[in-house]
Formats: sequence, C-alpha cells, structure tokens
Amino acid sequence: MQTLATILATIAPLNRDAMTKAQHHIDGLLKPQGSLGRLESLAVQLAGMPGMKAGLNTDRKTIMVMCADHGVYEEGVAVAPQVVTAIQTMNMTRHNTGVCVLGALAGAEVTVVDVGVDCDPLPGVVNMKVARGCGNIARGPAMTRQQAEDLLLATAKLTLTKAAEGVRLFGVGELGMANTTPAAAMVSAFTGRDPLDTVGMGANLPGDKMAHKVALVREALRINQPDARDGIDVLAKTGGFDLVGMTGVMLGAAAAGLPVVLDGFLSYASALAACTIAPGVRDYLIPSHLSAEKGAMIALGHLGLEPYLQMGMRLGEGSGAALAMHLVDAACAMYNNMGSLAESNIVLPQS
Amino acid sequence: MQTLATILATIAPLNRDAMTKAQHHIDGLLKPQGSLGRLESLAVQLAGMPGMKAGLNTDRKTIMVMCADHGVYEEGVAVAPQVVTAIQTMNMTRHNTGVCVLGALAGAEVTVVDVGVDCDPLPGVVNMKVARGCGNIARGPAMTRQQAEDLLLATAKLTLTKAAEGVRLFGVGELGMANTTPAAAMVSAFTGRDPLDTVGMGANLPGDKMAHKVALVREALRINQPDARDGIDVLAKTGGFDLVGMTGVMLGAAAAGLPVVLDGFLSYASALAACTIAPGVRDYLIPSHLSAEKGAMIALGHLGLEPYLQMGMRLGEGSGAALAMHLVDAACAMYNNMGSLAESNIVLPQS
Repeated sequence: MQTLATILATIAPLNRDAMTKAQHHIDGLLKPQGSLGRLESLAVQLAGMPGMKAGLNTDRKTIMVMCADHGVYEEGVAVAPQVVTAIQTMNMTRHNTGVCVLGALAGAEVTVVDVGVDCDPLPGVVNMKVARGCGNIARGPAMTRQQAEDLLLATAKLTLTKAAEGVRLFGVGELGMANTTPAAAMVSAFTGRDPLDTVGMGANLPGDKMAHKVALVREALRINQPDARDGIDVLAKTGGFDLVGMTGVMLGAAAAGLPVVLDGFLSYASALAACTIAPGVRDYLIPSHLSAEKGAMIALGHLGLEPYLQMGMRLGEGSGAALAMHLVDAACAMYNNMGSLAESNIVLPQS
Repeated sequence: MQTLATILATIAPLNRDAMTKAQHHIDGLLKPQGSLGRLESLAVQLAGMPGMKAGLNTDRKTIMVMCADHGVYEEGVAVAPQVVTAIQTMNMTRHNTGVCVLGALAGAEVTVVDVGVDCDPLPGVVNMKVARGCGNIARGPAMTRQQAEDLLLATAKLTLTKAAEGVRLFGVGELGMANTTPAAAMVSAFTGRDPLDTVGMGANLPGDKMAHKVALVREALRINQPDARDGIDVLAKTGGFDLVGMTGVMLGAAAAGLPVVLDGFLSYASALAACTIAPGVRDYLIPSHLSAEKGAMIALGHLGLEPYLQMGMRLGEGSGAALAMHLVDAACAMYNNMGSLAESNIVLPQS
C-alpha cells in the first residue's frame, strides 16, 4: 500500500552522470561556453531528474491549484470577501483567471483541487475537501496532524497519477482568502525570522492593518509552538489546507523524479515544509519569480533559490509558475534543437 | 522622400488617454488591483503605443539580427576566429543558432541582416552590407558619419516595411566577433564611466587579456573623441555596423509606434544611441534580461530600464529578446483574456 513514507522513500538524488553528460552536450552547442548562463544550468538540473530519462521534454505540463479557506480570515486579515475563494475556484473551471490565461499561453493544463473551500463540491474541480476551511491559527492549530498527513498523501498520489499519465512538468498554485497570514507564520517558523519581516500586504491589506496581522502571526506561533524541524507539525499547526496541498505536489513530483515550478510567497512556505520533510525535494524545485510579498527574499534565501523573473507580481494562483514554464521550455529547446560547434567546424577555446 | 529626419519626426509620444483607459480595464480584471505588477505596467505601456491601436496583439513578431565584422578584431580582443561571424550568419538561415531556437519557441521570425560581414552575400540573408567589416576603432573611426546615417535609414526603413507587413513586436539582436569592445566604448562615451567599469569578458576573453581590452577602449575614446550628445557621432566613431543597425531598428519601431524588445549589452549601447538621437524612442523600448556582461547595470541604469529576467546570459544574437517576448505575450493575454470582477459580482476595495 502506498503511504507517505513509501512515497518519500522513492525520492532519488539527481543523477550526476546524466548531469555531467548533459553539461558536455551543452558545451558543444553552437555558442561560447557558458554564454546561455542559467538556461544551461536549468537544462543540466532537468537532465539529472530520473523522470526525464527519455530526454528533456516538457510538452505535457500541469499547474496544480490548491484551493481552501482559512479560519484566520475571521480575524480581519484580508479585505476581499471570504466567498471570493469559492467564486474564484469556480472561475478556474471557466478558464478566465490569471493562472488559467497565463497557463494556456505556456501550454499548461490547470488542475483545480478543492482541498477545503467553504462551499459544496464544484463540478470540474478535484474534490479533496478536508473541511470547509481550516482552524483559526491565532486560536489553535489549523488542522490535526492526521489531517495534514492524509492530505499530503492524497495530493502526492494525485501528482504521481498525473506523472503516470504523461505530465513531465508540474507547477504549484493556490487560492484562499487570508492565506498570506499562515504562509508568513510558516516562513517565520522555518527561518526563525520575526513576523515583522515576513508579514506583507497580501492582497492589498491597508497599511494601518499590518500591525494587527503581525500580532496575529506572532500569536499563532506562540500558542501553537510549531517545531521547525518537523515540516508536518508546522503545516498542521500554522499552515492551511492549500499550503499542505502544495507541499504534497512537491513531494509527489520529486517522487516521480520530475520538476516542479514554484510560484510566489505561498509556494515558498510550502517548499520550506517540503524540504524539511524530505530534503531531497530541493533538487526538483525550479524557482520562478520574486514575489512582491514582503518576506519573499527571506524565504527564497533559506531555500537557496534565486528567482529567474522580477515582475513585481503577487497574485498567486500559480501565475508566476506559468510564466516560468516558458523558461523551462526554453532550456529544453536549447538542449534539443541547437546546432553544434563541431557541425560548423568551429573550434573555440575552453572558458 | 523618406529621410532619417522625416522618420524621426514621426515618432509620437505614448497616448496617455489610451494608457489611462487600459489601466482602468486592468483594474477591473479578476484579481486584486496591482497584483500582476509589471505585467500590468507592460500592458499599459503597449496600450499607449500608436501602432497597437487595433488592440494588444503581438501575434506577428520578428527579431532583427544585425551581423557585421569589426576592424578592432585585429587587436586581439576576441578569442573566436573572425570567420565565425560569417559561419554563424549562415547558420541563422539554418535555424540552429540560439536566437533561432529560442525565437521559434516564442513564435518569432528571425530576420537576418548582413550589415557588414567579411564574406560574400549569403542566400536567405538581407544584404545591407556597408563594407567587409568596419574600421578599427583603436586606430580611427569605425565608419564615416554618412555611412552611419545611410545604414540607420536603411535599417529603419526595413523595420517600417516589416511593420507595414503586419509585424507588431520587434526584437533586436547582433552577431559580430569582437563587438563587445565597441559596445563598451559607446557605453563609456554615453555614460562618462571609465572603461574599467564597462569592459567585460565578452565571449570568454581570458582574464589576463582584459587590461589590454580596457586599454584599447580607452584609446578608441581618446583618438576618436566621440560627442556624447550626438548619437550618430558616437556610433560612427566608436561603434560598428551591427550597433548602427540595431539603433536603426529601434528608430524604425518607434516611428511605426511599435514595441521593440532589447537583448543584452550590445543592445543597451545601441539603445543609448537611439535615445540620444531621438529621446522619444525610450517609451517604445522593452527591457529583457540583465546581461552578464560587466557594464550591463550601468547602461540599463542610464536608460532607466529594469530588466525582467535574471538569467546570467551573455550570448547576444537576440536570445534574451526572444525569452522576453513570452512576457510581452503574457501581458497581452492578461489584457485580452482574463475575466472581470464585475462579471463575478466581486467588489474589492481600491488599493
């Protein structure tokens, strides 16, 4: 039987031989050595992933959008009506949200997963609803440890199923009013940084309400006492169903030996959890943009990831992951389609 | 008769009314105000361009690759054989160079223009050859002022013709062994910065030859005394045919009221020239990536442009322009395809 433990046990390190061969191939392409910079290192990273063994091909992509409500909404940390989570989840099936439009441009499907929206199940949405919203982290845990483990398993299995169906590139996204509050709590828990440094404006929270949001995050950490060495503990106590779901996608993608493109601040919080649960996940993560949310640099710095895009974006949903998928495609196109120096009888000195 | 002066006279400022309307439209899209950051400001910029009046549509794109040899090659400032300029120009017609592969992914044609390669005219390449390589800038001017003016006119007219044929988005690229040397000279001339700050490794020049390259740039500036207030003077004295050609594309695109995506360091030098010749060009420029060449930040800072991509690339050819075209497409897709808050009966507070 597939358990979270058996899935985690299948996460393999990148194949160093394959990476060395890929670097050698890239060094022979029709360009000065190293001149395509991070497009080259991205291709080498992809080449090391066991799920890519049939060649660098990311034709089938999907962005997994985890949708859920948050108990902490009741504390007044978001300005949008809470029902917007349900409305936008439904809009995902109408293909007119930001991630749908940008995903379509990148050739990516959008897989919409209800992991805890406060509404009845929606047609066209994968139903993995744990509850109609998680607990209020400022008053207690977001969920039980068992709920977190079950949802990690369910979303990881969904990802493995997609991989078995032929998906070669995953992206993560989320939707949930008030969810920058638990994300900030998680980033503070994992990095040890004060909430003053990790709490941002989210979806346009007015400046005069920021101190309240900081105080709530501080309170969430105080009453829940999450253990930074235990990723599931942090997720269950100060996270939310969407954050757990994204973590599950990362675990599943890594178990499938396939790349997963991060999105913005929420995804950084989930990535910190995923890398705490299984450090081997780190090699399968591909950064996208630098989120405009305040704690973005802190979280990415802790992950040791440098974003490719500087767009000042903070929509979430997977919109940044969609943009970065073009770069992954570009790395593959370089690898597969460029001519070689040898074919043109060009000899360049080694750099 | 079309002259450079008549073309420059048609460069219009961006349409502020159209930009205000576009911002209003974007503020009503299905997302928190401002949350798509620079994708939004890029769409507003595009909406202000007179050539975009039929709506934001960048379906037809072309990257204009200007190919030329450089007299300063003989001073030993490049490690690749000089014939690589001709070989790579020919490879552009075989679609296996970096810009061809990345351009194809972005749906862009590549228009290859020989403005001064040291070879016979090549099939499939637009022949605007001024000479078989320009003069050695360390010993005298790269070309006469008349040659620079004629080539600016020819390349601007080619760009206007492409616009008349339906191209809606231009990119610039170049190819020419040793051309980071004149580019550094131009950036130093326009910004007043010492060549120590603008001379980089180009295509893998060994560290022990950098002092020689710096000295040559300093000598080029000393003997030619380019006038920083006169863009054509700087191009003619310390530039090269490829740098002039890219400048001409920028002038032509702006005259057509259409966007032109920059590439790397060489394109920054040409952009500085274009904005000196006609300051109105600035509004039509779209930055792409931050080149890994040493003086990149200095040149972009002088242009007041902030790159979207951090890829550590330094290939040139238009490879960075190709990558950024996906972002321009994304801005248009957001503008044209996202749903509205009103359709979903969502009311969000203004930010």
